[in-house]
Amino acid sequence: MTPSSSSTMTGGIATARGFQAAGISAGIKATGKPDIALVVSDTPAAAAAMFTLNKVQAAPVLVSKEHLAKSGGVVRAIVINSGCANACTGDTGLADARTMAAETAKLVGCPTEHVLVASTGVIGVNLPMDKLKNGIPEAFAALSGANGSRAAQAIMTTDPFPKESCVTLIAGGKTITIGGMAKGSGMIGPDMAPSATMLAFVTTDAAVPQALLQRALVEVVDETFNAISVDGDTSTNDAVVLLANGASGATIGEADYPQFMKALHDVCLELALGIVRGGEGATKLVKVTVSGAVSVGEARTTAKAIATSLLVKTAIHGGDPNWGRLLAVAGRAGVAFDPSRAKVTIGPTVLFADGRPYDDRAPEAAAYLKGRDVVVGVDLGAGDKTSAVWTCDLSAEYVKINAEYRT
Amino acid sequence: MTPSSSSTMTGGIATARGFQAAGISAGIKATGKPDIALVVSDTPAAAAAMFTLNKVQAAPVLVSKEHLAKSGGVVRAIVINSGCANACTGDTGLADARTMAAETAKLVGCPTEHVLVASTGVIGVNLPMDKLKNGIPEAFAALSGANGSRAAQAIMTTDPFPKESCVTLIAGGKTITIGGMAKGSGMIGPDMAPSATMLAFVTTDAAVPQALLQRALVEVVDETFNAISVDGDTSTNDAVVLLANGASGATIGEADYPQFMKALHDVCLELALGIVRGGEGATKLVKVTVSGAVSVGEARTTAKAIATSLLVKTAIHGGDPNWGRLLAVAGRAGVAFDPSRAKVTIGPTVLFADGRPYDDRAPEAAAYLKGRDVVVGVDLGAGDKTSAVWTCDLSAEYVKINAEYRT
Repeated sequence: MTPSSSSTMTGGIATARGFQAAGISAGIKATGKPDIALVVSDTPAAAAAMFTLNKVQAAPVLVSKEHLAKSGGVVRAIVINSGCANACTGDTGLADARTMAAETAKLVGCPTEHVLVASTGVIGVNLPMDKLKNGIPEAFAALSGANGSRAAQAIMTTDPFPKESCVTLIAGGKTITIGGMAKGSGMIGPDMAPSATMLAFVTTDAAVPQALLQRALVEVVDETFNAISVDGDTSTNDAVVLLANGASGATIGEADYPQFMKALHDVCLELALGIVRGGEGATKLVKVTVSGAVSVGEARTTAKAIATSLLVKTAIHGGDPNWGRLLAVAGRAGVAFDPSRAKVTIGPTVLFADGRPYDDRAPEAAAYLKGRDVVVGVDLGAGDKTSAVWTCDLSAEYVKINAEYRT
Repeated sequence: MTPSSSSTMTGGIATARGFQAAGISAGIKATGKPDIALVVSDTPAAAAAMFTLNKVQAAPVLVSKEHLAKSGGVVRAIVINSGCANACTGDTGLADARTMAAETAKLVGCPTEHVLVASTGVIGVNLPMDKLKNGIPEAFAALSGANGSRAAQAIMTTDPFPKESCVTLIAGGKTITIGGMAKGSGMIGPDMAPSATMLAFVTTDAAVPQALLQRALVEVVDETFNAISVDGDTSTNDAVVLLANGASGATIGEADYPQFMKALHDVCLELALGIVRGGEGATKLVKVTVSGAVSVGEARTTAKAIATSLLVKTAIHGGDPNWGRLLAVAGRAGVAFDPSRAKVTIGPTVLFADGRPYDDRAPEAAAYLKGRDVVVGVDLGAGDKTSAVWTCDLSAEYVKINAEYRT
């Protein structure tokens, strides 16, 4: 590690200089748990963002995209509610998302298009706007550089714990902070950019030109939020937003870009893996690596097929070193390879190679699968490209959570 | 119904004239349950077959394809074992599959290439050949036109019940019988042709030219076995085989083809729906219809995405009329449509239309979902093409079965 490398620290969305956050309970959730989060930059920040590619896009996604287009990528605040997704809610939903932004803009003292909106929760129900109209000023009053964790709690739905991450790095002799928060537990699938009922917000006090910021976000999301899966499903409300307000006095240019990228990657990967660890009913974090592929795309396709296979996820849940399921899923992933050259590993143990099983090693692999973090791998024996994705096991608890989510 | 229409009757794989079957216990399954099935035609039969498109193909699939190529589509017997898939078993596995065929051919008195082989069970374990060598003669001795049900039992793995179907039709003044059996419970996914750890065998005493027989099978499988999903996964061992031995004295030509197709469709659909009803942990049969699509392909793609979505399958299991999940999955299926023109129905109840939810109708839809057979539909509002697929709900029992299958 060079002295300029990044280092991890405790912190989150409001740790970078010039950012404040709040999380309060407005009564949108019947449980009374926190359900409105607010993030404000003291000065206009450059913003990069990625939204769900689902054809069905929630009102807050449509409004946020509209605002970014209008502002040219300048953001002062993000207002987020949990407990209601404001998706499939028609014209009323659109008007409600606009009102959320307008109410926030009024308090912050900025143009409405400098406010982004995000929502997460049940689809097809209109927002309780009276609660939001009371809650937003309450959140504004609670804004503080020390309230990042409260914001991280307020964006949770079925998440078992909040997700926060923070790193610092030195660039141009100045300390830069990158911190963030994320939520997501179910409806997390890797076939979008970004994917899942996943909300992730990252702030930095570096100054980064907007085009460079967007490039950084796209690259990092591909290897982090886009490389995770809980249930292979994807949402109408996904959003990842990265704000850079320059309060540190340091500017990231091409020279510092690799170092900035590494730090941003660290923050986003920690948030993404937090989502998987907290996946609905999850008891294990599973890294799926596919190597020996002709292209990174084919490696990724195969890894995703394995990471979303119910048979693989239930076998790992049961601690069963069922390498045959890994190979069978690779075989139906639509990627060409010769099974007799393929290799299947569970942890450090090779269970299939040279066209034949090594079943005497199954007890060793079964012992390994008792761990909480496990790695399974398929080498296709067809090339030299690799990809990794992360998923969790599938438990009876997952079914329970999702069969009872609304009722 | 015209007098020439087909009619359903009790029967299965050995009901058509000139076919015999047997099912015996050879000790391959530790439980002692039946595990070898044998189907024999008194005379050489024309054979149509479809096998898994998985890149990883089990030894019996490779050997059966080899035999069909060599015989030009002529089959006298099919020997099937459950309890061991003989997949990913290398050269030993190939030799074992060949031995199964050779032992059967010796008893039947036919060339080895007139015997097809199928296996289902755990992947990556070699066949216990001593048990097969004892079991095949025992099955041969038990052959009878009355033993179709025993064969249907002997091909089961995690299936909760055997699947049989039979219809008769009149063609050219003669009664033709089409009967079959199938197995499959997990690893059933619709993205192959055919798909799933699914074995289906159908016999008819009509005479059908081999090319016409293959055409009929491909068409029917697309709308039956290929339109079902239990867990979206697909196997290394899938096979559907259709034998026609002409023992009825009736020949199917182009004129009788539509009627024959309808009867064959009825048999295959009943077998396919039996697989879904008996899906691992299933409590409901779910028909997913997608209408208003630009093409049948897009309708099918969307229907498959819905039928394999964990969120949809768990919601239906919980009796939750969560139409938002249906629409969200349609949105990520990769098919273009305008959500404001889409419509979502659960049973007869429209829950989303004209861009807005009708949540007051949720109780009505929830009551409907208490039924055992349910239909959910999405109309994309983009065209006039339709497709239907069948799936089952996802229960905690599914997870239990698959987490404990091998251990």
